[in-house]
Amino acid sequence: MRTVMWEAEGPAVRMIDQRLLPGEVVRIDLRTVEEVSEAIRDMAVRGAPAIGATAAFGLALAAAVSEATDSDSMWNDLDSASATLSASRPTASNLVWALQRLRSRAVAAVDQSPQAIRQLLLEEAQRIADEDVETNKAMGRFGAELIGDSDTVIHHCNTGALATVDYGTALGVIRTAHEQGKRVHVLVDETRPRLQGAKLTAWELDRYGVPHEIISDNAAGYFLSRGQVAACFVGADRVAANGDVANKIGTYMLALAAWDNEVPFYVVLPTSTVDLSLSSGAEIPIEERDPREVLDLEHEGRPVAPADSKALNPAFDITPHRLISAFVTEVGVLRSPYADALAGAVRRAQEKIEAAH
Amino acid sequence: MRTVMWEAEGPAVRMIDQRLLPGEVVRIDLRTVEEVSEAIRDMAVRGAPAIGATAAFGLALAAAVSEATDSDSMWNDLDSASATLSASRPTASNLVWALQRLRSRAVAAVDQSPQAIRQLLLEEAQRIADEDVETNKAMGRFGAELIGDSDTVIHHCNTGALATVDYGTALGVIRTAHEQGKRVHVLVDETRPRLQGAKLTAWELDRYGVPHEIISDNAAGYFLSRGQVAACFVGADRVAANGDVANKIGTYMLALAAWDNEVPFYVVLPTSTVDLSLSSGAEIPIEERDPREVLDLEHEGRPVAPADSKALNPAFDITPHRLISAFVTEVGVLRSPYADALAGAVRRAQEKIEAAH
Repeated sequence: MRTVMWEAEGPAVRMIDQRLLPGEVVRIDLRTVEEVSEAIRDMAVRGAPAIGATAAFGLALAAAVSEATDSDSMWNDLDSASATLSASRPTASNLVWALQRLRSRAVAAVDQSPQAIRQLLLEEAQRIADEDVETNKAMGRFGAELIGDSDTVIHHCNTGALATVDYGTALGVIRTAHEQGKRVHVLVDETRPRLQGAKLTAWELDRYGVPHEIISDNAAGYFLSRGQVAACFVGADRVAANGDVANKIGTYMLALAAWDNEVPFYVVLPTSTVDLSLSSGAEIPIEERDPREVLDLEHEGRPVAPADSKALNPAFDITPHRLISAFVTEVGVLRSPYADALAGAVRRAQEKIEAAH
Repeated sequence: MRTVMWEAEGPAVRMIDQRLLPGEVVRIDLRTVEEVSEAIRDMAVRGAPAIGATAAFGLALAAAVSEATDSDSMWNDLDSASATLSASRPTASNLVWALQRLRSRAVAAVDQSPQAIRQLLLEEAQRIADEDVETNKAMGRFGAELIGDSDTVIHHCNTGALATVDYGTALGVIRTAHEQGKRVHVLVDETRPRLQGAKLTAWELDRYGVPHEIISDNAAGYFLSRGQVAACFVGADRVAANGDVANKIGTYMLALAAWDNEVPFYVVLPTSTVDLSLSSGAEIPIEERDPREVLDLEHEGRPVAPADSKALNPAFDITPHRLISAFVTEVGVLRSPYADALAGAVRRAQEKIEAAH
């Protein structure tokens, strides 16, 4: 099953509730834009590409449930839904990218009936979801060439099927290498504070039969320094025009440790994650999340922090492009200098999408 | 109360059971060498200086409970106790240092009665414990000069009163600065997997009234890159002759992030942590601990890792001396080149100890 999909009976946006993994696999149906926005905010669904597809289905849902009988009213409803969805989380650029793509389609149909707009938005959301799977498989093929037989790689956060509509970005590369028969072995960063590595990535690798061990994020540098790691693979939430990467908190420290040990550090992302409007990572907004994500942890049955402790909880950090060995995208592997390479990749991907319409 | 102390009624080694903090402050009395060794292994007591003092009291306990009536039998008992204590944990050099120091004293008294040896060992263990507190206060004074008013500093693991007999090493420096009226603010690395930062350091800082927030270890790089951090302070479990530092896992990644942002990275340690017999960090043994320390974590009441997950759990890593801005010791602040500075500091500290006898 896909991480997120359209459920025509309802109508609803249907998704796996990732807050319950790895213990339970539960599907939830979201019937309002507010529910979709809350699912994104509370991380029932997470991962930049999955958030993008969810937002697209969310806007299609807004159109589907809108009682508008003329296109002006429909536009009012879509504007309001867009604002709600955009505000769900600030860092992942796929969210805004997907909403903009749907709105461009709707603009092209501005004179049509509300029903035609409803249909058009749903088709475009479905297309984004379908393309995501194809995009991930293409990245898998390009990226798998960077993995040798019997390589051990480090992976941060979750970038698998659960972070996308299906198949995954960085984890998709690892999965492709595994499916090609390469004996790839993964050290899974547990990824504090939300533990997407331990909770989600280990669960996925288990299902794919890929050998792996979970490690504290703190331990990545140790394994890198012992010469035991061939490469690191991570995803991205937003990439600036110069190649600076916003990704899950801890990515920057992992990239430094890879760089200090001359281990390649690869960022795997669809071009929809590139935001050419921002010149560098300094302009990417970084989400501050609830301190309880850091504090509400139990070890051996006991709370770990003193009562009334305070915490700071930035959800992302910026990895400077100088620490990145290559980007793996759906149009190929990009090497430095990144500004030209990323702009070119975005252009080629857009041409493909337009050609398909 | 001190972290570890001698309890004449018993006799016993008395300590705070750090496994129960921050929830409960419970003292335990250990009446055999095996119990002392197990308390070290299971981390009822941890922190290199505290482990050293505990081992010293443990050997004194072995002598006290020995039924030897001649010095040969006493030596057999001490050899056996030394072997048990030495094997408790492999990385902290203070453990071996303390045992060797007690044995040198006993050797000087080789012809004396078992009762005289008992007395001598207990006196020396007590001296190590008392010296530890003075040593920490001296380091506090030297180190506090590196902290400016209103500085924010990052601290990794626990190096406070609980990691020593009393007062602390790196946290002792922060505490001294606070006591001097400097408005120091601490970002507390939670320190996975055992969470000594969240459990112990936050608890200590609360008691001292030092403002602080807990952060994921992953977030240190983010705050360093934002220019919000004036310095990092850590302790050490063993330092090689060239200045390479074995310390709690994650120290190396923190040092890299400090270095990449030109933020000073200070290591605070008594000279008893320096092991001049090892030329570099590559020779320091790194303890691998139970994978359950990584996996047995609950978040929102649920286990975080899939059942049957595997984990790797190295307890320490090596920070190369090139990343260290200075060492703070009880004989002063040492700057690069470290080989000469460390050898000189060890010599001066030993001369002081010998002069005191």
